[in-house]
Amino acid sequence: MDMERVNSMGFGEFVDVFGNIIEKCPLVAAAVWSQRPFSNLEDLESHFFAFIDALPRSGQEGILRCHPDLAGRDLQQGTLTAESQREQSQAGLTSLDADDRLRLQRLNAQYRERFGFPFVLAARLSDRDAVPRELARRLHCQPESELRTALGEVKKIGHLRLVDLLGAHPARVEPPRGWRSECQ
Amino acid sequence: MDMERVNSMGFGEFVDVFGNIIEKCPLVAAAVWSQRPFSNLEDLESHFFAFIDALPRSGQEGILRCHPDLAGRDLQQGTLTAESQREQSQAGLTSLDADDRLRLQRLNAQYRERFGFPFVLAARLSDRDAVPRELARRLHCQPESELRTALGEVKKIGHLRLVDLLGAHPARVEPPRGWRSECQ
Repeated sequence: MDMERVNSMGFGEFVDVFGNIIEKCPLVAAAVWSQRPFSNLEDLESHFFAFIDALPRSGQEGILRCHPDLAGRDLQQGTLTAESQREQSQAGLTSLDADDRLRLQRLNAQYRERFGFPFVLAARLSDRDAVPRELARRLHCQPESELRTALGEVKKIGHLRLVDLLGAHPARVEPPRGWRSECQ
Repeated sequence: MDMERVNSMGFGEFVDVFGNIIEKCPLVAAAVWSQRPFSNLEDLESHFFAFIDALPRSGQEGILRCHPDLAGRDLQQGTLTAESQREQSQAGLTSLDADDRLRLQRLNAQYRERFGFPFVLAARLSDRDAVPRELARRLHCQPESELRTALGEVKKIGHLRLVDLLGAHPARVEPPRGWRSECQ
């Protein structure tokens, strides 16, 4: 899909196509449509990201709260969005054994309890072994830096979803930090 | 449901219950959860409305763009949210004859073309005869005043949805203006 095609879309089609760039937040795509025309993928995604950055803290936390747990209830119940299902599947999270799933559920619950939003990670840049390691690491970060880290993951997810839709090459996206790295 | 129950909800349950107070914008409920505890319905809804009021214009237009046309494609295809289906049904919009449906579709298209967002109206406070009249009237309003009018309708819809969930009595909500009234 080229940008001429994107720029020709009415808002209904635009929201149908780009409504889940930010998980379960079609409002962001619906707002971004106001900024057309877009010159390229970077320009288009910059409007998605600027909208998120301009939200008050409650709104940024709200964006995170619209994300599902990794290997959580929505995956078990088959209620993930198509994008999230694909991403969690690619990371191997759909085929965890019962012990690994339980371990991840416990870590997710600890994380939600500590930060008031779910653990968000660009699963396609991770794998079934790295996810619980990264979750356990971020569990010890400070709330302010963790909010920034999590929103950074939202943007990585959004970038990769836009790349899929536009048939472009992904930019170099920083992988999760190693186990012993510091919080941001 | 009393406020003690509401205030005891984790964000997952809160978004499940209140995620469609603002049509297809669970982000708003997910943000509002940050403001708990809530003292009563008025307090709770004031946080929903304050979030909308604080959005930039593109975000306010985005809220409107997440609404379906009245008697439009989503109704025909059975893809309305449960709340919107009930509201459009109560207004008699699910049983229009072909001529009336076509007339409304043409007015909806003119409105979208003029304002860049769909015609939004609290359908439960209207009926199948008043809807096209009100649409034709608002079609002639100025964009600035029409944005305010439409966001006012979003708030009436949200108020009535909250009343349904909390089993409260609705506040006196102003009905749509008469055919010959001025724009705001």
